[in-house]
Amino acid sequence: MHKITPIAHIYTDFHSKFGVPRQHGIGELMGKIVFEKPFRDINMLRGLEKFSHIWLLWIFSENINAGYSATVRPPRLGGNKRRGVFATRAPFRPNSIGMSAVKIEEIIFECEESPIIIVSGVDMVNKTPIIDIKPYIKTDIINSATFPNIIHKLNVEIEESLLCKVPADKQSALIKILEEDPRPSYHKDGRQYGFYFAGMEIIFTVDCDTLRVIDVINI
Amino acid sequence: MHKITPIAHIYTDFHSKFGVPRQHGIGELMGKIVFEKPFRDINMLRGLEKFSHIWLLWIFSENINAGYSATVRPPRLGGNKRRGVFATRAPFRPNSIGMSAVKIEEIIFECEESPIIIVSGVDMVNKTPIIDIKPYIKTDIINSATFPNIIHKLNVEIEESLLCKVPADKQSALIKILEEDPRPSYHKDGRQYGFYFAGMEIIFTVDCDTLRVIDVINI
Repeated sequence: MHKITPIAHIYTDFHSKFGVPRQHGIGELMGKIVFEKPFRDINMLRGLEKFSHIWLLWIFSENINAGYSATVRPPRLGGNKRRGVFATRAPFRPNSIGMSAVKIEEIIFECEESPIIIVSGVDMVNKTPIIDIKPYIKTDIINSATFPNIIHKLNVEIEESLLCKVPADKQSALIKILEEDPRPSYHKDGRQYGFYFAGMEIIFTVDCDTLRVIDVINI
Repeated sequence: MHKITPIAHIYTDFHSKFGVPRQHGIGELMGKIVFEKPFRDINMLRGLEKFSHIWLLWIFSENINAGYSATVRPPRLGGNKRRGVFATRAPFRPNSIGMSAVKIEEIIFECEESPIIIVSGVDMVNKTPIIDIKPYIKTDIINSATFPNIIHKLNVEIEESLLCKVPADKQSALIKILEEDPRPSYHKDGRQYGFYFAGMEIIFTVDCDTLRVIDVINI
C-alpha cells in the first residue's frame, strides 16, 4: 500500500463527469492547473517551457469509491463489447489513476496563485486532483504502435440557432465531444440526455448513429 | 491522500537501480509481468492482444523513502543543469510514480501464474511494483510535440573478449545502456563503476565522453 497526495488541481469546463471527453487531445478544451501550497514553487517547473506537452497523472476522483470490475464495456467500441479493465482506459480501475497528454499553452509565473499552467486538450472534470506532471518526451512517441479501430462515432446535428448560443471558441470542441457519444455505455436510443459544459446545459437525443442537440441553456 | 496498491510486479534483468536505463524503449530489454493474486484474472486482460504497446504505471520502489527536492540535475542533460522536478522524469518526485510505454511481446494465458505479460523496452529495476496497465492508444502519439535535445551521450568502448562474455541477445541493449551514461549525476571521471545486468557485473570507467568497459564478470 502506497499513499499519494494531490500536488495540484485542474480547473476545466466540465462541472460534472457526464460529457467529459473519453480521451485527451481535443485542442480547444482548456484547463488551468493550480498547485497546492506545498508545491506552489516556480523552481519545480524550471525548464518546463522547453517542452510543448506534458503528461498529467490524476485521480478519477468522482469514481474513487465505486470500485471496479474485471471487464468493462468501452463506449468507444460501441458499448456492447466487453474488454478487460487493463485493456481499456476506463475510469473504474483498481487504482483510480488517469493519464492524459496535454499541450502547454502558457506558464504564468506572476500572479497570486503562481505558478499556473494553462493547458489544452483536457479530458478531466473540473477540480480533478493532479498527482504528477511529467514532460512528454521523444520516447513517448511510438509511431509503430497498433491498436483496434475506434468504430463508434456519431453524426451530430445542431441547428444554427442553438449553435450560436455556444461561444465561438467552444463550438468545435463541443461538436467533437458529441461525436464521441457522451452517453453511458448502455444505450437507450430516444432518451433525452443533458450535460453541463462551459456554463451551459447541452440537451440532446440520439437516434441510431445521429445525435441531435435539442437545446442549449445558459445556466 | 489516496491509497494505491500494487496489481503486479515486473521481473527484469536489473537487480539494482544503478544501470537501469533512463527511459523506456530499448527494445532488447525484456520484462515479465506477474499479477498479484486478486488481479490474477485473464478477464482483466481481455482484448489487450489487439494492442501492440501498453503503458505501465509503477512505483519507484527503491526511492520511495528518499523524498524529493524542487530541482534535480537530469543525467541526460549532462548532470550539470538544474531542472524543476516536474520538468523531468526523475525518480525522486512528490508522488513516486513512474510511467513507461513498453511493447507487448506475448501474453501467456496458460501457466501456473497466468496471465503473464512479456514485454520489451523496460526501464525498471527487478520486482518493481506495477500499479496500473493501460493500452497505448492513438491519441498518445503526438508527432507535433517538441522537447529539448538530449545532448549527453557517451562513446562506448568494449573489447571483443569482454563483449563475447555477454549473451548475444543482450549485447545491443548493454551498449545502449552504457551510451546513455549510467553514472549518477555527479561525474567523477576516472573512477571505476560497476553495475549488475542479466547476471553479470559490468565494470567500467569514463574519461571525458568515452566509457570503457574494463571487465564483465559472471555472477
